[in-house]
Amino acid sequence: MRKDKISVPVIKRLPRYYRFLADLKEKGCTRISSRELSDKMGLTASQIRQDLNCFGGFGQQGYGYSVDSLYNEIGQILGLGHTYQAILIGAGNLGKAVAVHMTFEKRGFSLIGVFDNDTEKIGTVIRGLTVSDISELEDFCCKNTVDVAILCVPKEAAPAIAERLYQAGVRNYWNFSHYDLSVEYDDIIVENVHLNDSLMVLCYKISDSHKAKTEE
Amino acid sequence: MRKDKISVPVIKRLPRYYRFLADLKEKGCTRISSRELSDKMGLTASQIRQDLNCFGGFGQQGYGYSVDSLYNEIGQILGLGHTYQAILIGAGNLGKAVAVHMTFEKRGFSLIGVFDNDTEKIGTVIRGLTVSDISELEDFCCKNTVDVAILCVPKEAAPAIAERLYQAGVRNYWNFSHYDLSVEYDDIIVENVHLNDSLMVLCYKISDSHKAKTEE
Repeated sequence: MRKDKISVPVIKRLPRYYRFLADLKEKGCTRISSRELSDKMGLTASQIRQDLNCFGGFGQQGYGYSVDSLYNEIGQILGLGHTYQAILIGAGNLGKAVAVHMTFEKRGFSLIGVFDNDTEKIGTVIRGLTVSDISELEDFCCKNTVDVAILCVPKEAAPAIAERLYQAGVRNYWNFSHYDLSVEYDDIIVENVHLNDSLMVLCYKISDSHKAKTEE
Repeated sequence: MRKDKISVPVIKRLPRYYRFLADLKEKGCTRISSRELSDKMGLTASQIRQDLNCFGGFGQQGYGYSVDSLYNEIGQILGLGHTYQAILIGAGNLGKAVAVHMTFEKRGFSLIGVFDNDTEKIGTVIRGLTVSDISELEDFCCKNTVDVAILCVPKEAAPAIAERLYQAGVRNYWNFSHYDLSVEYDDIIVENVHLNDSLMVLCYKISDSHKAKTEE
């Protein structure tokens, strides 16, 4: 019996819980207390209890949580039971890294196509898929169910590609480009990975810690 | 005259402001109202005013914000004036993508070394740097100032590498590995990029939107 609305910060923590629980399962651990979980995750025990309460709470006083039920429940909340068909736009370094590096299947995704406009990349093979000419995009989207587009294109190329994908009916995006899709389209789902932003946040954290040290 | 403590969500938004303001500068735009900024950023005008108030607020009633001052101030808050020397650990697909793809210099970082333990990668050249044998790590850290380590290694390799980097005095990490460094070390600065987590969040958003549609 879980609440219907889970807050964004809790959602962002769910994958971490899921990873930790997967580790515990692998190690043959069947139960865990909120204290152990908090030690391992660097969160307070009360924060963990609060998080887990959001979706039912499997803890029994003195017995802790069942690793298996918690793992399965979080997987279900994350919607990992489905398989979504994804295409990758952009077969440059980043696109290639994403294609090769990600264990899509484990997360409920299946990569079914890769597209680029660079004649040197078209025809090469990435993760068993031949890179197609971007001109074939609409035709491909017609003939296949494309649930998700992974955008690994330069910022300048993103608006035009996004428009073509949108017109072809694609509504879910994993966006690595520095283009804010959701500003242009309001009925799409976007998860952004802005690596430059992340680097800037690191920069902030470092300079902030220097400041703190100087003030000490 | 800005406040000393800026909240995490505001900090996470700063790079986006910074990007948008860079775009505006490029287009020759000198002033912008909070309403225009909010339209472009997909935030409410009041949220933007609140954010910008955190660090002084450059807005004048009816005149909007000066693009230049805002850009410079945010850059300063982000600590972009420095140059931090970074090394990359792991020259696989992901490490290569990060090395080639990122405009480090623009973000105040300079990549000065790349390390791997794979004899096939050692000696190859990435972004003008020859990939060194990981056995040379300690020596390198002795002879150079290493402010940041970029971890692009598999999860299994991360704990041992992290320990070596920590012993060599590295305290700042841009972490792409699925290993939670901050649990092990409490006096380090870490910015995590967990691509698998991001993919799971996308999965959640998609399945959540399906649920919402079914319930309509």
